[in-house]
Amino acid sequence: MAVYTEVGDEDLATFLAAYDVGRLVSFKGIAEGVENSNFLVITDAAPFILTLYEKRVAPADLPFFIGLMEHLAARGVPCPTPIRARDGDALRTLNGRPAAMVSFLEGVWPRRIQAHHLSALGEALARLHIAGQGFALRRPNALGPEGWRRLAAACGRRADEVEPGLAAELARELEAIAAAWPADLPAGVIHADLFPDNVFFSGERLTGLIDFYFACNDFLAYDLAVCLNAWCFERGAELNVTKARLLLAHYQRVRALTPAELEALPLLARGAAIRFLLTRLYDWLNQVEGALVTPKDPREYLMKLRFHRQVGDVGAYGLP
Amino acid sequence: MAVYTEVGDEDLATFLAAYDVGRLVSFKGIAEGVENSNFLVITDAAPFILTLYEKRVAPADLPFFIGLMEHLAARGVPCPTPIRARDGDALRTLNGRPAAMVSFLEGVWPRRIQAHHLSALGEALARLHIAGQGFALRRPNALGPEGWRRLAAACGRRADEVEPGLAAELARELEAIAAAWPADLPAGVIHADLFPDNVFFSGERLTGLIDFYFACNDFLAYDLAVCLNAWCFERGAELNVTKARLLLAHYQRVRALTPAELEALPLLARGAAIRFLLTRLYDWLNQVEGALVTPKDPREYLMKLRFHRQVGDVGAYGLP
Repeated sequence: MAVYTEVGDEDLATFLAAYDVGRLVSFKGIAEGVENSNFLVITDAAPFILTLYEKRVAPADLPFFIGLMEHLAARGVPCPTPIRARDGDALRTLNGRPAAMVSFLEGVWPRRIQAHHLSALGEALARLHIAGQGFALRRPNALGPEGWRRLAAACGRRADEVEPGLAAELARELEAIAAAWPADLPAGVIHADLFPDNVFFSGERLTGLIDFYFACNDFLAYDLAVCLNAWCFERGAELNVTKARLLLAHYQRVRALTPAELEALPLLARGAAIRFLLTRLYDWLNQVEGALVTPKDPREYLMKLRFHRQVGDVGAYGLP
Repeated sequence: MAVYTEVGDEDLATFLAAYDVGRLVSFKGIAEGVENSNFLVITDAAPFILTLYEKRVAPADLPFFIGLMEHLAARGVPCPTPIRARDGDALRTLNGRPAAMVSFLEGVWPRRIQAHHLSALGEALARLHIAGQGFALRRPNALGPEGWRRLAAACGRRADEVEPGLAAELARELEAIAAAWPADLPAGVIHADLFPDNVFFSGERLTGLIDFYFACNDFLAYDLAVCLNAWCFERGAELNVTKARLLLAHYQRVRALTPAELEALPLLARGAAIRFLLTRLYDWLNQVEGALVTPKDPREYLMKLRFHRQVGDVGAYGLP
């Protein structure tokens, strides 16, 4: 939740004048999105979302993100469509920051996860993976095994401030995961951060996938592992097997997982758990005085990591 | 800027079902309003603003605020109209908090104040004062001279942390203002907090006055003094006489100030300055660790207070 940048009236008017979007009716900061400043721009033609990219997003990555949304939207994925200005550019500048306008998606993100959310999510994720094939640009996953090691090193012994022994546990875990990490699995464009607040529903209908600012090229099944962690645990890090089964089964209705992907899933889930554990740990240990965002407790993902460590095979996730 | 309360899907659905407002299309927290949690609710019928009243608003005051908006809107003031549920109530409960839905107002609040804003503001404020006549409920101004004294006492010697000597200056100033404070001036319902972020414009047209949660009964000209301080100073607390003249002259096009009001204006402006100086000082000295809101610098209003102290008469504000 954040609006970091104030936008001046005249700057906004100049910015909008470059587009064919109609007359400005309303302009409000939205309390969503941790990385960027987001605004709802309503014109007499339609509502739009305006994003100003703050310093955590590398400008060099923006053509990948914008291009990907355009690619996916053109293939029927319910994601924001970048709006091109009259000169054809979708990526512009406002208040000295890179800025883009995208289409507004209806729907509400689910605060309480129910079974029907998982079945819709599984199918939408598989469709996203299929639609991503053929996207020309590439972006390596900066938060893959190498990135985890750098994050763990940056946290160092201070990990023990969260729980005594955590630094040693992380070192052991990183070594074990790296040793077993698959060399080859079906790969492509993944969302990599598909948490509930990035998925909109209207009633039981999935209406939107948003926030593609961690999207990258990686194993497709790793995306599923991220969702497994983000959607299928109840408070206290207990896996809800019904939810996990629905997610996986409905994914497979659209795209069948290979035997190698199924076998790798517990390890991918361990990797996905340590990825969010490490970024939360880093943010927890490096809190900025006066920051608008309260860091999330890293221990939630520590419990998920420990859960997946003891999983034998995908049977634990409800698959036969 | 704040969304303090998360609203669950089912709670929201139950809440909206009590109204005739159509089918939910979108629901987003808005990064505006410091005192309450505000959400934009878009249905297939219209957009609305949903407010959850947090602890800084006294529940006993809500019938005054809601009733006042209804009274003013019915008389053509461009302010939010409370939406009544099917049972006729405009004030309900959501997430254990008092909650109300109001109409959505188009427009954008001005980040850079220009001359045309002041003329529209002056006329709108005078119309608000006239429309407020006949509103049956009453609410004393909790932030009048008595309230200032309590705030100053609560800050005590710690005022000197902001500037050495400030505690003594405040004591002298409070005494001088109280001794000269008018006993009788035209009174009625005032907004009492009409800062630029509470006034919407669409182009040069004033489209909305919002945030009535400091509204109360007090001297009408005191409201003008609040606006003089909030709208007519340039960075560095220098009065822009052109802006002040436009505000006062356009107010008088709708409602002429009496000779007593004109004479009292420098003193009312001093009072309005010390009111915001004291609340900002109190918030500055009592910052909550991890709060979402960055306290505003009290010194801005200290400079305004000192400016008005040396003003002889309304000639200083550009009136002949």
